[in-house]
This record gives sequence, structure tokens and C-alpha cells, in this order.
Amino acid sequence: MQATENSPMITILKIGGNIINDPVQIEAALDYFASFSEPGILVHGGGRKASEVLSNMGIQPKMIEGRRITDEATLEVVTMVYAGLINKNIVAQLQQRSCSAIGLSGADGNVIKATKRPVKTIDYGFAGDVESVNDNLLIQLLTAGLSPVLCPITHDKKGQLLNTNADTIANEIAKALAAAGQSVSLRYCFELPGVLEDIQRQDSVIKQITPEKYAQLKAAGIVADGMIPKLDNAFAALAAGVKEVVIGNLDSLQNGRATVLNLN
Amino acid sequence: MQATENSPMITILKIGGNIINDPVQIEAALDYFASFSEPGILVHGGGRKASEVLSNMGIQPKMIEGRRITDEATLEVVTMVYAGLINKNIVAQLQQRSCSAIGLSGADGNVIKATKRPVKTIDYGFAGDVESVNDNLLIQLLTAGLSPVLCPITHDKKGQLLNTNADTIANEIAKALAAAGQSVSLRYCFELPGVLEDIQRQDSVIKQITPEKYAQLKAAGIVADGMIPKLDNAFAALAAGVKEVVIGNLDSLQNGRATVLNLN
Repeated sequence: MQATENSPMITILKIGGNIINDPVQIEAALDYFASFSEPGILVHGGGRKASEVLSNMGIQPKMIEGRRITDEATLEVVTMVYAGLINKNIVAQLQQRSCSAIGLSGADGNVIKATKRPVKTIDYGFAGDVESVNDNLLIQLLTAGLSPVLCPITHDKKGQLLNTNADTIANEIAKALAAAGQSVSLRYCFELPGVLEDIQRQDSVIKQITPEKYAQLKAAGIVADGMIPKLDNAFAALAAGVKEVVIGNLDSLQNGRATVLNLN
Repeated sequence: MQATENSPMITILKIGGNIINDPVQIEAALDYFASFSEPGILVHGGGRKASEVLSNMGIQPKMIEGRRITDEATLEVVTMVYAGLINKNIVAQLQQRSCSAIGLSGADGNVIKATKRPVKTIDYGFAGDVESVNDNLLIQLLTAGLSPVLCPITHDKKGQLLNTNADTIANEIAKALAAAGQSVSLRYCFELPGVLEDIQRQDSVIKQITPEKYAQLKAAGIVADGMIPKLDNAFAALAAGVKEVVIGNLDSLQNGRATVLNLN
């Protein structure tokens, strides 16, 4: 399928653990997603349920530098929680909202093929780095009126499931659809209303960030720490043809007060 | 989409817990399914993993008359195990076999809508009786070269997931596709090589059963107990337009020595 000038914008919404963990926020996020008039793809993270199940089953969650180390028992649990419990409940709740959601792991229709991360200094276990996205299938599903809901489980097409960061999945899908000629808006829903000028002040959201502005913000130390890889990835997506990346929380995304990143 | 005289036969293969529980058998079943030259739908049951997880989490599995009583905690676990762990591993292993599987619960694309079973003498909890099948979506997926893999979780389109018997799911899908004008073969893979003339002799498989023969077998007490509802459902599927129902184990299904049920 070819994109034309009339192709509608595809919106990819990524929701993180802070939304998944909060019964009120998740309802609001699904209301928001179900309200899209144009095609949408939802990507969800994990949240604390996986750690709860691991602990109930006597398995100690292992994290290094904010990333889960996925041994075999952990992979079993995250597959259950992400691809089963969270994904299917989100899909059922979107169906209730007359949004024809279809839940997918990367294995389904080979939608996201990944490679087990090579062991360097850290052995991340069954962690998958994205290798390719089946943009054709995503476009077919969207064209059929379906809204794909992606969980952060991928596979290597050799029978092995892998655990992949949800931000990365959203980013890679956005880039692949842009490369396939689609108009793509990528929206990251996280804890803050946007990229803040002053981390102490929620009302200091920076409205727009271009590459030049980004360089200034980094030089001034305003953007630092965990925000840097997030924005680096966002600008990589823009460079790959994604129309805009928007970063905010549910409120700011909905009322147009989140941070918009674009190339100029 | 309309079926034509040239529409290929759609084969629905149902595999039960005995296959899921056995690492050798599941490999063989997936080899068999991946070898289909015509469109296929795989329906899988649960197996003992759900009971293991329930017990690891300190929840006592509850069964009445061979059916699981699905309270809220049990629904959470079966959703994790059936829709997550089992479904995604099967899909990944079919992808490895170059079979483009796509895993679905009933909520995905509203493919199976169910109603929570009304409480009469027994309260089955979150058990779902099938109300409708989205045959259009299944046909679209098959036409796109995908092989749907169904787990026994459905939904009520009001946001509630439900636990549904996998035999029933296979049967209802077969009937819905037949009603949509498709040629359908329904294959049940269970413990025995077929319906046996003598339950003590595995080599006493009855080759063919018509409704008349079925009446004789029941009158003679050869078909009894748990086999009766299985065959009743099979004949209901045939009456609804399914071309054939085949009952056997992996070996007998593959070498053509399973029991074939048809109307004449």
C-alpha cells in the first residue's frame, strides 16, 4: 500500500508504567486514545504488576541502570503480564469504547523482529534490540479500521520471545511507518507535562524544541540525565521522517500544552 | 468477502492441555499446523501451567464438573497464562516455522464476543458463553496470509475478559465460518487416536461416524460419558454447515486414521 498526500496522520501513543499502575489514569488514557479520529497505535509499558507477580512467585526482580535483567523466569512472567494481563485488559477496555483494538506482541504477524542483546559488560538476558518492523501489516490493520495495541514483548523469529523497552518499540514503529511514506505523529505520555525549563515548576513546559534549541538546552544543563536519551531518540525519529514528537502527560497532551519536537 | 467455489478449505485445529503440557508433543503439533498448505486457524487450551501459577501464587484452583470456576484472581492468572505465556510462545514457534501466526484473544478485533454465564445452580464466575464470532476479521486475516492462533479468553465488549472452553471456541468459529460460506474442516486433537469401538484398544478407532451410526453407538453404550457432549457439539457443527469434523491424536490426524464425522 502506498501513502498518498491524502493519507491520514497516524498517531502513535506510548503510555508508561505510571499510567498502567493507576486505575484512574489508565481509564483516562484509553478515553483519549479511543477519541482519536485518525488511525492510532497504542504502545504500552509494563508497570509494577510484573514485579508483583515475580515477588509472589518468589523471584527477585533484577534491574541494572533502570533496565530489567530478563532471565528465563522473568521472561515468563513479563510475557504473562505484558502480553497477557495488561495487553488484553487494555484491548477489552478499548473495545468497550467502540475502538476496535487488536493486541499484538512483536511475534504476532512478525510485527517486531528483534535480536537478543549481545553480552558486553552487562548480560541483559532475554532483552531484544529491534531489528525490523512489519510496517505492511500495521498499515493493513489500520486500513481495516483496527487499532494495534503493542506490548513490549518481541521475538527473534527463531522461536525465542524477548523483552524490549516500550519507548524503543514506539520509536521504531514511528520510524518504520515514516520510511513507508506515512505521516506519523509520535506522542510520549509520561509523568511530567512536558520538557521543563525548571524541573521544580510544572508550569515551565518548553513549548517547542528544534535541534538548535535542544543543543542550547543541553549546553545550559536544562535538559539532563534520563531526558537526554529520550530526546536523542525523538530527534532520531524526526530525522527519519516522523512529522512530530510530542512529550507530555495526559492533560498536557490533550490540551495542547505538551512539548512539541520538530526539525524547524 | 464472499466465498466462491474455489475458496480453499479452512482447517481449524484444536489442541488441548495434553499437547500444551508436553514439550515434544507441542513441537510436533506446531510442525503439523505449520505444514498446512491451506489456510489454518489454531485454537489452544490451557494445560496445567495455569494451575501451577495459581498454586505458586497461593490461589487454590477450583473445578466443578471438569470446568474451572473463574473467580477474579483466577481470571487474572488464566489471562496471563493463556493469552500471554502460551499464546505468544506458540506464535513465536510458528513464526520460526515460517508460518505467519497472529495470536488473538476474543477481545482482539472483537473476534469472539461472549456473555458471562448466568448463575443457576453453579456460579462459574467469569466464564463466557460465546455470543458471536467476527468471521469477517478471521477471513481478512487468512486472506492476508496470516494464521490466527486463538486462546480461550473472550470478552463481553463491556470491558470484561472471560474464560471460555477452547473446544467451544473451535466449534463456534467453525460454525461462523461455515455460515459465512466458507468450506471448513474442524480437527480436534486429544489423547486418543479417535472414537474407539473398545476403550481398551487403541487400534479400535471407528473410521467414520454419521448421525445414524452415532445413534447406534450411543444406544450400544460404546460412546458414553465425556465423549457424548464432544460428539453432540461436532454434529451440531456439521448441521450448521461445517464440512467435516475429525477427532484423533497427532499421529492419527496426520496419517488419516482418526475418526471422521460427517452427515452421510
